[in-house]
Formats: sequence, C-alpha cells, structure tokens
Amino acid sequence: MALYCPDMEPIALDAMGGDRMPEAAVDGALVAAAEGVSVVLVGDEEPLRAALDERGASLPIRHADDVIAMHEHAADVRRRRTSSVMLAMRMVKDGEASAAVSMGHSGATMAAALFVLGRLRGVERPGILANIPVKDGFVALIDVGANAECRPSHLQQFALMGSIFVRTMWGVASPSVGLMSIGEEPEKGNELVLRAHALLEETRGVRFYGNVEGRDLFRGLTDVVVTDGFTGNVILKLAEGEARELFSWVRDALRADLRSRIGGLLVRPSLRAVAARLDPAEYGAQPLLGVDGHAFIGHGSADARAVTNALRTARRAVEGGLLEHLRSGIAGLGEVELST
Amino acid sequence: MALYCPDMEPIALDAMGGDRMPEAAVDGALVAAAEGVSVVLVGDEEPLRAALDERGASLPIRHADDVIAMHEHAADVRRRRTSSVMLAMRMVKDGEASAAVSMGHSGATMAAALFVLGRLRGVERPGILANIPVKDGFVALIDVGANAECRPSHLQQFALMGSIFVRTMWGVASPSVGLMSIGEEPEKGNELVLRAHALLEETRGVRFYGNVEGRDLFRGLTDVVVTDGFTGNVILKLAEGEARELFSWVRDALRADLRSRIGGLLVRPSLRAVAARLDPAEYGAQPLLGVDGHAFIGHGSADARAVTNALRTARRAVEGGLLEHLRSGIAGLGEVELST
Repeated sequence: MALYCPDMEPIALDAMGGDRMPEAAVDGALVAAAEGVSVVLVGDEEPLRAALDERGASLPIRHADDVIAMHEHAADVRRRRTSSVMLAMRMVKDGEASAAVSMGHSGATMAAALFVLGRLRGVERPGILANIPVKDGFVALIDVGANAECRPSHLQQFALMGSIFVRTMWGVASPSVGLMSIGEEPEKGNELVLRAHALLEETRGVRFYGNVEGRDLFRGLTDVVVTDGFTGNVILKLAEGEARELFSWVRDALRADLRSRIGGLLVRPSLRAVAARLDPAEYGAQPLLGVDGHAFIGHGSADARAVTNALRTARRAVEGGLLEHLRSGIAGLGEVELST
Repeated sequence: MALYCPDMEPIALDAMGGDRMPEAAVDGALVAAAEGVSVVLVGDEEPLRAALDERGASLPIRHADDVIAMHEHAADVRRRRTSSVMLAMRMVKDGEASAAVSMGHSGATMAAALFVLGRLRGVERPGILANIPVKDGFVALIDVGANAECRPSHLQQFALMGSIFVRTMWGVASPSVGLMSIGEEPEKGNELVLRAHALLEETRGVRFYGNVEGRDLFRGLTDVVVTDGFTGNVILKLAEGEARELFSWVRDALRADLRSRIGGLLVRPSLRAVAARLDPAEYGAQPLLGVDGHAFIGHGSADARAVTNALRTARRAVEGGLLEHLRSGIAGLGEVELST
C-alpha cells in the first residue's frame, strides 16, 4: 500500500456511500493525495480500479462488497459488516486508519461509528458538529442531528467537546460557548434550556457566554453554540436552504433588466466569493464528536471538492490530536455533573 | 371621534410600546388613516397631541397614563390596567375597537391579550403566526414564540388556525400544512413531532402534507408550517438574522474593487427590491391566533412603515372575518382529539 505520509496511518474514505460516488470520491481523494494526504479508498474494488485507471492514477483500495444506500435504514449497518462504511470504521478501530470519512447515509455512518468505535468514556451521547460560516470565520454548532431528544448533561458535554474542537482545529485559546434559546435572559427558554443553562454556568473547561438567539448565530457572537439535535438540525438545514434561496433571488435580480444584467456581469466575481463561503462543500464533512476515533460525516450530495475538503479536515484533526484532547478534556467532567 | 370607516370600529394602536414610539406610531397611523383605515392612538395624550400638532394632523386618542417598557416583566401587565397595551385590549373586549396592534413588549402584549380577551373555545394555547417571505409569496409559520413547550394537541390547533389564517388572509382555498422536523419520513423527529404527526394525519380541516425540513421553509413547500414555539422562535430569528447578514456580505462585495463598485451602482435598484421583500417591516405585525379578539404583535424596533403595514394587516383580518372563521373552525375539532 503506497502511503503518501509515512508518519500517519491513512484516512479511510468510504468511496461508495453518497449520490456522486465513486467518481467524486476518486477525484476528491486524488487532489488530497497530491497535497500529501494519505488516503485509502474503501469500496467495490472493480469500479474504483476502473475509475483510477481512467484517470491514469493510483490509490490504495480496501475492497468492500456491500454499501448502505441512501434510502436504507441506519440500523441495518449492524448486520452488514462488509459494507464500505462499516469497513472504514473497522480500519480506524484496528489502527489501520487514522480517521474515517463518509459522504453516505448520515444515520448509517453515525450508527457504524457508534457500533464499531464506541463512545469516549464520559460521553453519554456523541454529537455532530457543523461549521456555520460567519463574517470572520466559523461558528461551531453542536448537535446538528445525532440526538433528537437531549438531556441537560448532553448539552454540557456538547459544550465541552465543541470548545475542545474549536481550540484544536481553529486555534482559539479560550472559545466562548452560547446556549441556543429564545431570549438572552437565563429564565427564557424551554425546560431543557433552563436546566442546561444552570449546568453550563458551573462547568469547568467551558467559557459560558449565556443564552444566544437565532439572530446571533450568523453574527458569530460566540465561537461555539450548543443545542439539541432537533433544533440544531432544523437550524443547519434552514441556514443552508435560506442561503441557497436568497442567492437565487439575487441571481434573478441580476437578470431583471438590461441595467441589472450589465451590472451583474461586473459584480459576478465578488458575489461568487460570497456564495463560495456559504457552500457546504467548503468544509467538506462534519465531525462526530464523542466516539472513540476520528469520524467525519459529509453531505450525501458531496462533490469532489467536498471530498477533498473533508479529507483535509480529517487530516488536520488527526495531526492536531483532536481525539486525545477530547479524551482528556471529557475526563475532567466530574461524575456528579454527568449524572444530572 | 372622527372615524374614517364608519362600518368598522377603529383599530386600537398601542402608540407607546416600542423603541421608536410615539413618533413611528403617529407617522404610520397617519399613512394608514389616509388610506381609510380607522385608527385610535392609545397612549399618553400630551406627547401624542404634540406629535400630531407638529404634523398639522389629527387622529383620535385614548389616553393611557402607563406603558410597559421593553425591559419590564410580561407578567406585570395584570396589575397595570391603565397601561397602553392593556387599554388597547380592553377596547377590543368592550367592542370599542375591532383589533389591537402593539409594537411594544411582545410578552406583555401576549399576556395582555390572554388576560383581557381570553382564549377561543377549543384552543388550549394561542400561538403567534409569522409570515416568512418565500419566492412567490409567504409561508405561515406558527408558533414563533408564544409557547416554549408544546403538546401534540397544541400543534394540531396551530395547524388548523394557520390554515384558517391563510385561507382568510391570502385566499388560498385549501392550504397545505407541513410539520417541521428533521427528516421527511414520519418516523423522523423528536417525541413531540412523532406524536403530532400521527394526530395531524387524522385532523379534519387540515390538509396535512407531512414532515418538512429547515431547507424546505424558504422554498415555500407548504402554505403553513407548524412547530413548537421554541423551534419557531429560533427559526424566525435565524431567518431574519441570516438575511440581514448575507445582505451585508453582498453589500461589502459590491464595494470590493472598482469593477464591483461600478456594477454595484447598476444592480442596486434590483437588489433593493429583493432586500425589501425580506424586511420584517413589510408585513408589520404578527397575529396572535387563538385569543378571543383580533390582536397583532409587532417588532419592538418597528418604524412608521411597519406600523402602517400592521394596521393594513389588522384591517384585512377584521374585514375578512378572521376571528369568526377561527371560532367556527376550531369548534370543528372534536373533543376526543383535543384531549390527546
């Protein structure tokens, strides 16, 4: 197996799960590999080999004879051990890969990660963290869909894991954490938020800002925003959907009349830069924090660029020692707090 | 009292509550009055009279010697019967006004409406409905903040009230209703959504589309979207905040270099039209559905244009018989369903 970075086990890329696979996986992995990211493609060897040959390129392949399709049930992964996503997780578990990345069925990827890697000690529920683009960087929003129902202690663990992620990945020394609510005052919110607020105020390792509101997210008021997976998933999809819709309105406006058309040609490059910042492909994949291994979940519709970015993100996490930081950070949470 | 529309009691406008009052109330009311909307200003007579004199104009005034400030507690309204918002509601209750509109403290306005007007028979919890601008019109989102915790039957009542609102106000004969969730499938969501889904499938008077996701809202997939007041409030504030933020990015992009500046001048009129559609002032105020009277709640930061639009909306509701439609529509919900 030809490794491009001898100091690091390769990143296992589920090359089958996702709408545009395996082509996008191959193209995206080749770009990352050229930059020195060590990748192994996990999936059906024949089409993968064919795609590589077509491009006159070569990458290591780990054959998997099964794939979880987008419409199948997440729970199916348990009995489909030879599926590409399960094999990718197994490679991480066995130390053959430093991280697993899948752009396939999100639920199945999460289930496979939980089943094969297990939870970090002290974490009740792993959470998915999303990077929300704001003016001068990103906000880390957690959880965006792993847990539709949450308890206050889950939000406390999300807050700590989100802080560690931001410190490790973005180099923010002391990240601030906001709790998504419907008013700034501590007494505003639903039952979950009221109790989580009290808990976060006394959590070591978390610089708690207090409640934040929907309008604050895009202003980048805090580095991390914690919320339950139902609200977080609604937020993430709304934010992406609204950006897409507003840009289509802007595009239409730039075709409204001759004057707008001419102006549109002139402003197009600048507007493209804005649109690119909002493209989910920009960050590639979202980490599942709280499992005992580096695992990343991408959009099912991911293209080659998203795959490349996902692999870059995974490498940064591995090189930064994200997992070790999470392990030691979470161990600092007292048992008393965890039982709340 | 000089009424501009003899067939309808005037609309009671709380002219004190809100950041830009009473000036915005006076200016906004004068525009509406010129269009034939009958308005009575409720608030401190002296400054209101002075503002009217300054403009060489005249409008009926109902004196109120108290006002609930934005930072005060909503619950305070109960013992402050002479506050402008309480007086406005009292006028509706006593038949002296056909509707009440306040751009002041939202919680206080809601509390005053509930306390003075009471709930419609069959409604457990009134909900606030917001108009979300989408490509070809609006989506009615309910509840956007009246109830941080909801039960399935509350969502059922929101669905019915939202449908009646859309039919009455927008003339949509058979509005479709979506349930905000984190996946299209009926088995996706939190406990509340799973139970509400089952209930909505068998609710007469509601054309239930099924689950919708955050990304669907701006696409206008359904006419009505129901959700609990926590999620709805997060959605509303996120949607407004994101639109504001993205437009500031676009504005900055149009100043990035000389080419963009020139193009920016050309496209400005078309982009202004897009931005105007997203301005909350466009619809002015949101109805509180489920109280026994027409009550509208506006942004605390409302300007004169928002006040005018709020008064127009209130008039349309009164003329369309919104309250009567709600009363008879809700009565159609069986007792069995309500007790779920």
